[in-house]
Amino acid sequence: MPTTITDVVARDIRFPTSSARDGSDAMNPDPDYSAAYVVLRTDHPAGLEGHGLTFTIGRGNEVCVAAIRALAPLVRGRTLESLTGDMGAFWRMVAGDSQFRWIGPEKGVVHLATAAIVNAVWDLYAKAEGKPLWKLLVDLPVEVLVDAIDFRYITDALTPEEALDMLRRRVATRADREAEIRRDGFPAYTTSAGWLGYPDNKVRHRCREAVADGWTYVKMKVGVDAAADERRAALIREEIGPDRVLMMDANQCWDVGTAIDRVRALARFRPRWIEEPTSPDDILGHAAIARAVVPVAVATGEHVHNRVMFKQLCQANAIGVCQPDVARLGGVNEMLAVLLLAAKFGIPVCPHAGGVGLCEYEQHMSIFDYIAVSASLEGRVLEYVAHLHEHFLDPVVVRRGRYAAPQRAGFSITMRPESCAAYEFPDGDFWRAQRAGAAFTG
Amino acid sequence: MPTTITDVVARDIRFPTSSARDGSDAMNPDPDYSAAYVVLRTDHPAGLEGHGLTFTIGRGNEVCVAAIRALAPLVRGRTLESLTGDMGAFWRMVAGDSQFRWIGPEKGVVHLATAAIVNAVWDLYAKAEGKPLWKLLVDLPVEVLVDAIDFRYITDALTPEEALDMLRRRVATRADREAEIRRDGFPAYTTSAGWLGYPDNKVRHRCREAVADGWTYVKMKVGVDAAADERRAALIREEIGPDRVLMMDANQCWDVGTAIDRVRALARFRPRWIEEPTSPDDILGHAAIARAVVPVAVATGEHVHNRVMFKQLCQANAIGVCQPDVARLGGVNEMLAVLLLAAKFGIPVCPHAGGVGLCEYEQHMSIFDYIAVSASLEGRVLEYVAHLHEHFLDPVVVRRGRYAAPQRAGFSITMRPESCAAYEFPDGDFWRAQRAGAAFTG
Repeated sequence: MPTTITDVVARDIRFPTSSARDGSDAMNPDPDYSAAYVVLRTDHPAGLEGHGLTFTIGRGNEVCVAAIRALAPLVRGRTLESLTGDMGAFWRMVAGDSQFRWIGPEKGVVHLATAAIVNAVWDLYAKAEGKPLWKLLVDLPVEVLVDAIDFRYITDALTPEEALDMLRRRVATRADREAEIRRDGFPAYTTSAGWLGYPDNKVRHRCREAVADGWTYVKMKVGVDAAADERRAALIREEIGPDRVLMMDANQCWDVGTAIDRVRALARFRPRWIEEPTSPDDILGHAAIARAVVPVAVATGEHVHNRVMFKQLCQANAIGVCQPDVARLGGVNEMLAVLLLAAKFGIPVCPHAGGVGLCEYEQHMSIFDYIAVSASLEGRVLEYVAHLHEHFLDPVVVRRGRYAAPQRAGFSITMRPESCAAYEFPDGDFWRAQRAGAAFTG
Repeated sequence: MPTTITDVVARDIRFPTSSARDGSDAMNPDPDYSAAYVVLRTDHPAGLEGHGLTFTIGRGNEVCVAAIRALAPLVRGRTLESLTGDMGAFWRMVAGDSQFRWIGPEKGVVHLATAAIVNAVWDLYAKAEGKPLWKLLVDLPVEVLVDAIDFRYITDALTPEEALDMLRRRVATRADREAEIRRDGFPAYTTSAGWLGYPDNKVRHRCREAVADGWTYVKMKVGVDAAADERRAALIREEIGPDRVLMMDANQCWDVGTAIDRVRALARFRPRWIEEPTSPDDILGHAAIARAVVPVAVATGEHVHNRVMFKQLCQANAIGVCQPDVARLGGVNEMLAVLLLAAKFGIPVCPHAGGVGLCEYEQHMSIFDYIAVSASLEGRVLEYVAHLHEHFLDPVVVRRGRYAAPQRAGFSITMRPESCAAYEFPDGDFWRAQRAGAAFTG
């Protein structure tokens, strides 16, 4: 029996992370980690639902919710099988609707909403197949994976035939890598030691905790004040020692010339990479910075909005680390394109996961990338942030700096119903209590 | 007495242009030209209001309206003087709000909404000063114009000091150019002869009309079918003769390799430019096409979302014609940045005006550009589309292929109240009649 999507429910869920400066950086002093959350209701006898979200940092989340509601008629009433039978056609139907396309195209709010809906369909698909999403992807025929990709605008860098060849070359050895990941997990780094709004003593304390917990990769935020950056970099380097890996993240706060000067000044702390040194749109600027700050690698991607931009970042030798976000790109389909582009250009993929639900999402992408696309762990580490996992039914499991491979069916993105109810904006219990000046007792 | 913005009203206005295929092209077969329209109500004794809009093609217009409503608190309750006293700070406040910025940044729906609000403030400012917008800009001190620009991310191509120098060099001769434009108007081209959805005989008829009306520049749509493009190009070239200028517009429908092949095949019809040959995000792709199709110029801009992208199109020698849209960029402030970037790189600006209200807007930009920035008409022609002007209180006046300089105070974007009422979606009289299957008698 086919499964019909009977309704599409969009919800505005916001968490008050700004109160403790969790998530604060040079561009975002007071984020409230939020999700424009979508539930695909179905007539499946087991009551299966597809869940997806796109991530925002507070104000404007309602605009993404409005966009999800606008796109909803494209999937409401469709059967799951009619979508999964040709995932490429499904993606083009959502991302390519000509009238909606005008308000992107393939960028900004409408693309964020596309991600939420597309990922909800993949979640439903994986649940229906009884597999975690990464395993569903690994088990799909490589021809089906390639058909899921929209190659429009990227054929000058990657053709379907090349993509097929690349995937086929990995098939014989996939089982070994799958067994390895099930046994050892996937390597991770922590961003939770060095948020910009934390005072020095909190950063020092967090670094000691991170080292004790077995982390070997630590990321710090930089960018507002040069002297403070150097002071904090020295402090963190002192705490983590010379052998652990330090990364730096400027969150787009510099112009090209300033970025070059500031990264050169910070190079003595031996950062592995400088992340988002300038505008995410500035391909040529990233290339200029990358040439000027060797051996520090340039990383970007959390705000890079589609495969056309990633194609150019690869073509221009602008990045040494590729950081796509499956909730910023148009969902899993476009992520597949970016994983293959990065692999073709030999650039390691370290997805962006600094937001609510993003660790849950991106672990599937990194594990699939290793098993089926890149076949390498060299330079691959997946971001981890410590907060808000308690709101998910299948939260990430991280031990000694590694993600355990998800076991449950789906995309791990289903939130606890009580969390949705409490943090729905503006009328959930938490936000009502907040407005009333009362304590929220959960 | 200061003028306070007492309310911000956002409306969803849609016109049923798809019924006659007006506006149809290779990517947009059935656009309903629409406006996410904003009215800034004030306590000004003369009842002054600021009007602005962003343009969409139908579905999704409600998402832009939601974004305008989300941004509205940033200006509601402010005095006009507190905004115009530092237009740069005003722009950064709207475009740079850190939480809203996440859902762009500076692109897509939130940037379209920014354009509507920013332009409404400029409209109010011009009305308060009793000048058409182009004249207000011409009369502002050059220091004030430069202060209105956000130079973030473009200082590697253009500094505030350079911008100031460029504007100062034009001051002595501005009065001559202003007199010339008041006398002769600004040169235009027509897009209304060659919409893709028109049958050949309608195209032929429209071309004859255009020639009879004095048009010397005609643009046609291409892209879906190679044979049809060549047949229509031959037909149009036959109608307009060898000396009039023909432009071609592919509306993003090709990949890079296809674009090169198709433009080379169309070169025998001697198009002045090929517009939007591929993705608007593909800077390197445009550069590759530009190198391959000389002497046809590559043009793009209507979907180029911000100054960072235009900077790179200039730096990469990717365009020979720059087509910014003041409703796609973040309004007048960002348009100033793009006019100056293009002037520095010696690239003529021919703004995009193919949409409801865009001719009304862009005439002010082109006239200002000529008088105060470029000081040249060489290669400058402003797009004209023939439909929907009747809905504006101060519609464009075009005679013998030239725009007359607007005389009335403001940005010419105020719609007739009866048009707003009739075409408000979904409950205006037109749309009610449409749903009821009845004729709208207006």
